Amino acid sequence: MTKKNQLLQKLHDCLPPSAILTETEELHPYECDGLSAYQHLPMLVVLPETIKQVQSILRHCHALEIPVVARGTGTGLSGGALPHEEGVLLVLAKFNQILEIDPEQRTARVQPGVRNLAITQAADHHGLYYAPDPSSQIACSIGGNVAENAGGVHCLKYGLTVHNIQQIKVVSIEGELLTIGGSGLDDAGFDLLALMTGSEGMLAVIVEVVVKLLPKPDNAQVLLAAFDDIEKAGAAVGAIIAEGIIPAGLEMMDELAIQASEDFVHAGYPLDAVAILLCELDGSAIEVESQIHTVEQILNHHGATEVRSASDEAERLRFWQGRKSAFPAVGRISPDYYCMDGTIPRKHLPTVLGRISELSKQYGLRVANVFHAGDGNLHPLILYDANQEGELERTEEFGGKILELCVEVGGTITGEHGVGMEKIGQMCVQFDSVELTQFHAVKAAFDDKGLLNPGKAVPTLHRCAEFGAMHVHHGELPFPELPRF
Amino acid sequence: MTKKNQLLQKLHDCLPPSAILTETEELHPYECDGLSAYQHLPMLVVLPETIKQVQSILRHCHALEIPVVARGTGTGLSGGALPHEEGVLLVLAKFNQILEIDPEQRTARVQPGVRNLAITQAADHHGLYYAPDPSSQIACSIGGNVAENAGGVHCLKYGLTVHNIQQIKVVSIEGELLTIGGSGLDDAGFDLLALMTGSEGMLAVIVEVVVKLLPKPDNAQVLLAAFDDIEKAGAAVGAIIAEGIIPAGLEMMDELAIQASEDFVHAGYPLDAVAILLCELDGSAIEVESQIHTVEQILNHHGATEVRSASDEAERLRFWQGRKSAFPAVGRISPDYYCMDGTIPRKHLPTVLGRISELSKQYGLRVANVFHAGDGNLHPLILYDANQEGELERTEEFGGKILELCVEVGGTITGEHGVGMEKIGQMCVQFDSVELTQFHAVKAAFDDKGLLNPGKAVPTLHRCAEFGAMHVHHGELPFPELPRF
Repeated sequence: MTKKNQLLQKLHDCLPPSAILTETEELHPYECDGLSAYQHLPMLVVLPETIKQVQSILRHCHALEIPVVARGTGTGLSGGALPHEEGVLLVLAKFNQILEIDPEQRTARVQPGVRNLAITQAADHHGLYYAPDPSSQIACSIGGNVAENAGGVHCLKYGLTVHNIQQIKVVSIEGELLTIGGSGLDDAGFDLLALMTGSEGMLAVIVEVVVKLLPKPDNAQVLLAAFDDIEKAGAAVGAIIAEGIIPAGLEMMDELAIQASEDFVHAGYPLDAVAILLCELDGSAIEVESQIHTVEQILNHHGATEVRSASDEAERLRFWQGRKSAFPAVGRISPDYYCMDGTIPRKHLPTVLGRISELSKQYGLRVANVFHAGDGNLHPLILYDANQEGELERTEEFGGKILELCVEVGGTITGEHGVGMEKIGQMCVQFDSVELTQFHAVKAAFDDKGLLNPGKAVPTLHRCAEFGAMHVHHGELPFPELPRF
Repeated sequence: MTKKNQLLQKLHDCLPPSAILTETEELHPYECDGLSAYQHLPMLVVLPETIKQVQSILRHCHALEIPVVARGTGTGLSGGALPHEEGVLLVLAKFNQILEIDPEQRTARVQPGVRNLAITQAADHHGLYYAPDPSSQIACSIGGNVAENAGGVHCLKYGLTVHNIQQIKVVSIEGELLTIGGSGLDDAGFDLLALMTGSEGMLAVIVEVVVKLLPKPDNAQVLLAAFDDIEKAGAAVGAIIAEGIIPAGLEMMDELAIQASEDFVHAGYPLDAVAILLCELDGSAIEVESQIHTVEQILNHHGATEVRSASDEAERLRFWQGRKSAFPAVGRISPDYYCMDGTIPRKHLPTVLGRISELSKQYGLRVANVFHAGDGNLHPLILYDANQEGELERTEEFGGKILELCVEVGGTITGEHGVGMEKIGQMCVQFDSVELTQFHAVKAAFDDKGLLNPGKAVPTLHRCAEFGAMHVHHGELPFPELPRF
């Protein structure tokens, strides 16, 4: 009997037939996540709805040595939920309940398939909200947010996912249920909560999340500043932060992004600007007013050609609508686009933008830049046409160069989208063999057979050697005895 | 040749003679840390001053399978730096240089032996400071702060050590140098920076730290509120937080702590109060003024018998002086005291204080309560006399009960002091065998021979079985194959 049939026999004992998908047409909807250039059909899809079922599935996969890829709503942009052709895709869509909202402790206990925005909606009548707000927040699920340590416009002030969760329940590849984290600021033992957050499905499967909720700020105001030079806009960003102000959001868009957005949603952006900044301040009325005043002065002092504050709440939302629609807007002016994600120290913003512009000419591909300027998280969108022979490959090469550039100036190859399978090559640029070896050892401490999401997030040293970034002596890898995930 | 002599031979090749201490009288100053009830002489002490030397020491200890305990300035309160009798005490006192302050990136790159307060002093002329401020900040070193994930009065608003560092360099037990963390909000790969922070010397030895610096707030004001009932004070704390205000500090002291402090430093505390709250607000003048007003209203509304704001900077410092001197003040009214450290959900404050008071009567030992009320971190000080036969043992048992009480109400056995050897028994109360097994696996991923700080932070399952908290079937531990650290 094949492994697949052995597994199916076991799964039929613990899952209803409707929770097991095996037919090609049933599998197709799951063939990719948000990085749709890559597609595989999984061996089979399971849709459990209880923790016990997840435990059974993992226990059987472990016994049969079958790979497992967990998936939330599949909005990830780095291919973290790309199925494994010989593996099980464990879809957590049925884990969609908000289990408890505790307004006193300001927490929500939710299942991993709950959508990010649904938490904020459910907490709204308590005057509370969940702060991290990735652009995909309407669709993306909290389990995926934890797996990727998702960010968003507000993470400059309110932190990433890791700063906004308190406890998770996970199931190990052996099928054991672990409760990780607690109610205090710190916890005894190793910080497995932070380790698990952003681990991209490599260490365990998340089955419950307790998120922290924040009181909704009384007031929010946004400033829109136009610049005729991207370097000036970058300097203004540095100056705002240097003043000790932490905006609720501080975003930059370049010419092409401005034009595409304005065409699409008519946010009221100045079409003659080379760059715009959006700077949101929130808090008490008195605090917001005083900070708006200071930021206006800084923007003018740094050569903004125009500074406007939203005249009412509708205009404030319109300003943000433009920013949040930048990706689909770019989708309207190009058959395809590839969204990159890297982070650099803020001071290198002008240099890096200059180099991206040079690379754009070199590769003959247009780039629209949209980014979380406050924390140096870049999202260059490379415009291409997949129907043109070789253009996808050229786009990916260009994207890889951008990530390597981020590392070169002391940054990192991911800001909030994760490594997934997309950036696995660049991991070898950012980390050396000692560091990668340590990652492998940590991986093995949770999953010694390498069954959870194989091929993602942490490259094998062998792969790094092939990528050309790892030193190979006499044809031998530095750590030949390591397991190959 | 003994292991010790083999090691000495190796060490003499890589260290100057003055950096190796072997004589009993030289070893005595290192026999304990801040948990002075426990004392061991180490086999030998080394005082390296370069990273290369640390690498050599660890490489030799690894080869000879000799335990290594790292030590900063030895101010830790949980015995994390208690020497191992058959091991090397690796003292980082000579790593005392501030290597770089970058006011633009707002970071300081420092050696691990640099004192916490020295960083703030060095950054002062840039208008910057390092936020975490444990009570021992004059003496404690940043390496120890990272190892214990130290907190302080300001951590309610500004976070623990883990939230205020950006990168560390560590040496593994094999002598490999690893750079962990980066300049971005997030980083690729597993979050080893958070994992390493608070790992109590169990995973690697810290040899460099890049800390984040914050702009000094323009204004700070403190309110002192007196209560005739500790429950009312607890409710006021909840109400301040519920209002969405995050004070820079929110501390509570009970009757005995107030009296001891006032006797000692004459801070101006009301001697007839059953509890006092100190609430500090910082930020722009306008923000502080508006928040002080709101907090005053809340305090009065919750039955404060008196609310005073510091009339000038000198009085503000005096109010804090009282709080920061609470431990030595208690030391004046009792031959010995034992400082506990646990965290509970804020809402259980009244219950827990009531139970501590009952336990105090039951054990016939007085307790002074001083705590970070804002984040539910308790520091009950148990007053005892070590010269009275059996009183230390009774005190420790009482302390253990307090920690178990914290776990019972959903809290944790450490807020900021770590587990060390002090709370190793209570780890078995907080965690089950699946979780402890995972801790052991993570430990083994860094130190498979269990040489780094053995006997601390994570108990063996065997020890838990002896402690009585672990289920033992047929005389067998659940995971008999695990290494015994």
